[in-house]
Amino acid sequence: MSDPWTWHGGGLEAAKRRFGGADWIDLSTGINPHPWPGAATMAFDWQRLPDTQDLARLEAVAAGYFGVDARHVCAVPGTEIGLRLVGALIGGPAQHMAPGYRTHGAMIAGSAAVTWPDMGDRAGHLILANPNNPDGRALAAGAMQDLLERRSGWLLVDEAFADADPASSIAASAGDGRRLVVFRSFGKFFGLAGVRLGFVLAPQAIVAALRERLGAWPLSAAAIAIGTAAYADAGWIAAARQRLGEEAAALDAMLVRRGHRPVGACPLFRLIEVDDAHALFERLARCAILTRPFADQPRWLRLGLPADAVALERLDAALVDG
Amino acid sequence: MSDPWTWHGGGLEAAKRRFGGADWIDLSTGINPHPWPGAATMAFDWQRLPDTQDLARLEAVAAGYFGVDARHVCAVPGTEIGLRLVGALIGGPAQHMAPGYRTHGAMIAGSAAVTWPDMGDRAGHLILANPNNPDGRALAAGAMQDLLERRSGWLLVDEAFADADPASSIAASAGDGRRLVVFRSFGKFFGLAGVRLGFVLAPQAIVAALRERLGAWPLSAAAIAIGTAAYADAGWIAAARQRLGEEAAALDAMLVRRGHRPVGACPLFRLIEVDDAHALFERLARCAILTRPFADQPRWLRLGLPADAVALERLDAALVDG
Repeated sequence: MSDPWTWHGGGLEAAKRRFGGADWIDLSTGINPHPWPGAATMAFDWQRLPDTQDLARLEAVAAGYFGVDARHVCAVPGTEIGLRLVGALIGGPAQHMAPGYRTHGAMIAGSAAVTWPDMGDRAGHLILANPNNPDGRALAAGAMQDLLERRSGWLLVDEAFADADPASSIAASAGDGRRLVVFRSFGKFFGLAGVRLGFVLAPQAIVAALRERLGAWPLSAAAIAIGTAAYADAGWIAAARQRLGEEAAALDAMLVRRGHRPVGACPLFRLIEVDDAHALFERLARCAILTRPFADQPRWLRLGLPADAVALERLDAALVDG
Repeated sequence: MSDPWTWHGGGLEAAKRRFGGADWIDLSTGINPHPWPGAATMAFDWQRLPDTQDLARLEAVAAGYFGVDARHVCAVPGTEIGLRLVGALIGGPAQHMAPGYRTHGAMIAGSAAVTWPDMGDRAGHLILANPNNPDGRALAAGAMQDLLERRSGWLLVDEAFADADPASSIAASAGDGRRLVVFRSFGKFFGLAGVRLGFVLAPQAIVAALRERLGAWPLSAAAIAIGTAAYADAGWIAAARQRLGEEAAALDAMLVRRGHRPVGACPLFRLIEVDDAHALFERLARCAILTRPFADQPRWLRLGLPADAVALERLDAALVDG
């Protein structure tokens, strides 16, 4: 039974209780296993309400990183809540790409699943991720632009996994007069999902409505301080992109050696297809390796990036044992 | 001009730029100047998505502290967003108590201000704070129960300042079959407003709808860890209640000596009435003391609790100089 782990990634504590074992490797999410290192040693001003100017500075630094004017950027306490707030603001009718991220189908009531390459009714709103999760399919920025231009409804693009290869991002297209909302996540590429920080890039009217719903002080002191420093750390960002690419290549090579055909354009995760993915999930869990199965795709297993050579070898050995 | 400071408390950086001076004393909010000390030395797991069980444990510990079943408790990333999400869920028609907290008038579209002791149309929803902010008026729990029983609409009670004297709280009345929602704030009494943590106490249907709107992982790793430890620290909580009471009495004594009549049942702030509160705000700001003026109440000035005897003496001297 892999039920508790088909909802979202995570659930490591539940896995430990269920399968026993020690020294677990968590490959259930697409979170960078090498976090931005600054957070560990930062001190935070927990006492005062976060200052409005500090929040504005975070949004300005992040806007520079995304390549968009800061007037079109609204920080949110995690993309998850940002998706749901924007969904409630925009309403239907909407379609969401499937397979995709679970929340995309829940953020607008009555949203209908559409499958690639059918992009659904062009008059309605379309929700999709680029790169997509869990299959890692990435559309080039030009193809996304084309999608935007041909659509009369809103295009809602979750770029939670866009940081490793910014060339596919259409964040810079967010602005007034365009029916485009782009969602960016801090936690995945920077490896700090516990911070809860995301951004909505949208026309100013959407940004204003979102601020109204968030109220004053939407972010913790830590989210503001960590985000501001990390997005400004161009050296770390460049090094992380290179390292993640190399490590994903090493994971791919190992998976190919074991007879798999890994797919995915984002180095933070790979999808493999097997006869019984739930059985493989269980077998890996008995080796204290947590992966991500899918209730409606019994042949799919998503693997996050192992943190180091030891973890990669343990995954290799666990796959061989099967 | 006190305009930037009549919106909410806070804005210390703007005050420094505007008035100059050094070594500012921030009395603009009702935040305990003696924070729960554990946060300063805690380490947080920023890497992983916060585990569902850790969130449930925080809610269970907080529920015990509030005296309500955990099934009726939903943690939110700050009461501010909780107020707005619940307002959108419940809708109108609604009245809000005035004078009161600014967000209470904004959380339900079309909400009409009502003044004490007129409690508005009993068929509509009523939003009020107990103790109230900024005047600190506290209704006994029995009076609140009476208010709840006589109302056919929802009673929405913001207990952001209830921790110092839990006897006035009706948190324990939250449950199924009652049209009551209670909001609790972590940051004020525990002196850690930068954490962004609050709670909505409500019937299970409201809790479920709220969780749907918040999505997975509504809280940061720090909010979960700090909140869980602080709400369980009964010794600190008892000592803080006693200390705050003593310090509020010392503030009252000083204010009375200077010819004021401080009002307020919550030890975290006092309201004074003067001929020209905006002029007094400016005079105190020129002594590097930030207080809270009100745009629509030109005779009111709210003072937070000074952190120590030195701060109290500086406030005393600044008041005398006028």
